[in-house]
Amino acid sequence: MARNITPRADDYSKWYLDVIRAAELADHAPVRGCMVIRPTGYAIWESVQRHFDDAFKRTGHQNAYFPLLIPSSFLEKEAEHVEGFAPECATVTHAGGEKLDEPLIIRPTSETVIGHMYGKWIQSWRDLPVLINQWCNVMRWEKRPRLFLRTSEFLWQEGHTAHATEAEAREETLRMLEVYRQVMEDVLALPVVVGEKTEGERFPGAVNTYSCEAMMSDRRALQAGTSHFLGQNFARAFEIRFQNKDGVMEECWTTSWGVSTRLIGALIMTHSDEDGLILPPRVAPTKVAVIPIGQDGDSLMQAARSVTEQLNSALGGLFCELDTRFHMRPTDRFFYHLQRGVPLRLEIGERDLKAGTVRAVRRDNGDKLNIESDAVAAKVPEILEDVQRSLYERAKTFREDNTFFVSTYDGLKSVIEENGGFVEAFFGGTPEDEVKIREETGATPRCIPLGDDSRGRCVITGKEGKKTIFAKAY
Amino acid sequence: MARNITPRADDYSKWYLDVIRAAELADHAPVRGCMVIRPTGYAIWESVQRHFDDAFKRTGHQNAYFPLLIPSSFLEKEAEHVEGFAPECATVTHAGGEKLDEPLIIRPTSETVIGHMYGKWIQSWRDLPVLINQWCNVMRWEKRPRLFLRTSEFLWQEGHTAHATEAEAREETLRMLEVYRQVMEDVLALPVVVGEKTEGERFPGAVNTYSCEAMMSDRRALQAGTSHFLGQNFARAFEIRFQNKDGVMEECWTTSWGVSTRLIGALIMTHSDEDGLILPPRVAPTKVAVIPIGQDGDSLMQAARSVTEQLNSALGGLFCELDTRFHMRPTDRFFYHLQRGVPLRLEIGERDLKAGTVRAVRRDNGDKLNIESDAVAAKVPEILEDVQRSLYERAKTFREDNTFFVSTYDGLKSVIEENGGFVEAFFGGTPEDEVKIREETGATPRCIPLGDDSRGRCVITGKEGKKTIFAKAY
Repeated sequence: MARNITPRADDYSKWYLDVIRAAELADHAPVRGCMVIRPTGYAIWESVQRHFDDAFKRTGHQNAYFPLLIPSSFLEKEAEHVEGFAPECATVTHAGGEKLDEPLIIRPTSETVIGHMYGKWIQSWRDLPVLINQWCNVMRWEKRPRLFLRTSEFLWQEGHTAHATEAEAREETLRMLEVYRQVMEDVLALPVVVGEKTEGERFPGAVNTYSCEAMMSDRRALQAGTSHFLGQNFARAFEIRFQNKDGVMEECWTTSWGVSTRLIGALIMTHSDEDGLILPPRVAPTKVAVIPIGQDGDSLMQAARSVTEQLNSALGGLFCELDTRFHMRPTDRFFYHLQRGVPLRLEIGERDLKAGTVRAVRRDNGDKLNIESDAVAAKVPEILEDVQRSLYERAKTFREDNTFFVSTYDGLKSVIEENGGFVEAFFGGTPEDEVKIREETGATPRCIPLGDDSRGRCVITGKEGKKTIFAKAY
Repeated sequence: MARNITPRADDYSKWYLDVIRAAELADHAPVRGCMVIRPTGYAIWESVQRHFDDAFKRTGHQNAYFPLLIPSSFLEKEAEHVEGFAPECATVTHAGGEKLDEPLIIRPTSETVIGHMYGKWIQSWRDLPVLINQWCNVMRWEKRPRLFLRTSEFLWQEGHTAHATEAEAREETLRMLEVYRQVMEDVLALPVVVGEKTEGERFPGAVNTYSCEAMMSDRRALQAGTSHFLGQNFARAFEIRFQNKDGVMEECWTTSWGVSTRLIGALIMTHSDEDGLILPPRVAPTKVAVIPIGQDGDSLMQAARSVTEQLNSALGGLFCELDTRFHMRPTDRFFYHLQRGVPLRLEIGERDLKAGTVRAVRRDNGDKLNIESDAVAAKVPEILEDVQRSLYERAKTFREDNTFFVSTYDGLKSVIEENGGFVEAFFGGTPEDEVKIREETGATPRCIPLGDDSRGRCVITGKEGKKTIFAKAY
């Protein structure tokens, strides 16, 4: 049934781009490495944003907006930070018709400029904690761009918090990691492993970096979100200080955490199939497409409208779309919504009208079902919940089926080469060992899973190591 | 009662900045001309966004996202456009550690890059109209920045639409002008004059520009939003073509329209007073502050919580804030919300508790009122509606009291010099005449009001002219 979508088995990258094209999610911009997010893709992003934003606000965070341009001297104040980001920076040298005294960097992330402002705003323990998030665009120049996964400009949120104690900052870092896990699993139906990054994979300037790692349907890993405990590194560089209850000046403890439009890439590569996009109902901007079939007449339209209104009321929003493009063949309209990942299609034809039923077709597995017209408002939300659960379970089973424990480096190499997926191994090596593994296998340490304190013989050094997941990654 | 806020009469600019500082709305960024929007200010922007976004979606528009960076050659494709924007551009010359082949401009507005994409996407009359909006940051380098009013970077929305006929595009241009007027008047309580810009004030590349003009409390005008009919200028430059129903290729007709964070400046300068910010209830993120006074005890807290919950339920959202900072004196808490423009304060003290009442204090006029505790959910929404109406009426009366008709250029000069405000005069001059008026009086033509077709002797040329509003403007 697929039209113009390359089978995954033939060329996964091409399949991915075909899914994006068929659903009209995004397009390449005229500037190499940048993308245009088209209305269908942007509606998904708005839905993703709303779910995360609600969760941030529930946990006491406020939104704000910090400037796009950062003096290049700011980046240099934190040694590891500049080393990590300088190679990817885009630089403004001229503005208002003049050469600037100091080049300005388009933010690749905002720890520095936000640190500078926190240094001005925070005076006393009474000002703490500061819990701020911003939704914005950032720029990291990409040599090998891929829509949603790696683009020179992308959209994201970055949370930046400042605390009076190390314990509070560590608690915040893990709280936001857990918020990420919940929204990813419960809303995006992305099963993720949460864990700590190894030294070589840490955010430049962080003391500890934690991440959510998801498995795509080609068995590669995708880092879906990160949360960083920054210690006092940025507080030191930007003089973020407060007077404690005893009147003594101390440096703050800070955190940062972010998710980006690459989550749309994760949605595509986790759930979609040979026909195109599949979206979990909770994140789908359109959850149900109602398609009247036959002659554009009063009774048919009345039934279709009634079903649509009942559903929007039952779903608590304009989540049900009535497709009255009678100039298009029904199969073309089916395909339109199919390729856009709409979780459920309701067809109403003359025969259904007489029988007092509608025909429901699930996007995730193609199951068909007749529903009594007056039971639609009760039944459809149940079906959508089942679709949501099924997509999550399918992805989770796939990940479990493709996760392997190895006790030797040879084992790691052969699993990565022959099957791919997540490889669990004990690891206690250095960043140099991580480079060696990447060069020899293509895999990198994704994370040391939280809640698994088992220790064992490192597959590289032979010394004690922590359970670590390795995988080829996006 | 004002603390650290300069009286308007002493120094209006300083008063404006003091209001912003006292409410913690925004701060200067380390890069000159740029701003940081702090949580209190950003919450207002989120509220403004939601109201406009709902109105855009109701009128059939979808959101999308186009890239930040535009090849400099794009700007040059439309002659007037490049002439208008080149002097304000910020230019990226280096990225990813290399000098770029072609300099990239940080978007000052996106007609060019969106035009380029529309040229790719639009093929047939069936693809039309295209009705897209984007929320984003833009950059126009400012020599004399002022928070919210003129900053090098600001946040805005820009709608860009493409149509098959001139009539449809003209209809869209005026439809969105009317959407702007409605949201500004009904939600932001900003009375605006809608009209067409004179030739000298037109958007670079537009055939016609329309605007909403508001009067600030220092009698200067502020352009609060613009809507442009672009004719086929950008369609020609970017080859936005479609095959019509007869199979013939035609160029599209396009429009664009925008409002920005300068609306927050308009809110401040329209409604606020010597004590600080005043917000109209419909746009206020916090509509009511509930302040328990006295000892932090069970019965007091129970009453305060009950009032807060009743109100949030009655107002349909978390619009009521319970302020339990007992470590602060009641007057300090009053002042905190007062300076942030919260429309209504509810005080509950021991005496009120016994009497079964709460004390309501209006921000707009200081009126005090005792409300029975069990009538709060019914009464408060009525009071808020009255505050909303009063703020609008007050601003409208102020504008009417400061609008004058003159029939000579001397009259225009003396009104501008002695009183300020809006001066209505017949005008039929050239852009050169506009420059002369600006240089001699400081005033510019704000708009030719729609719906007023009266004609008369131009105050400059003596020939026939249209009724035009002149004012000093932000």
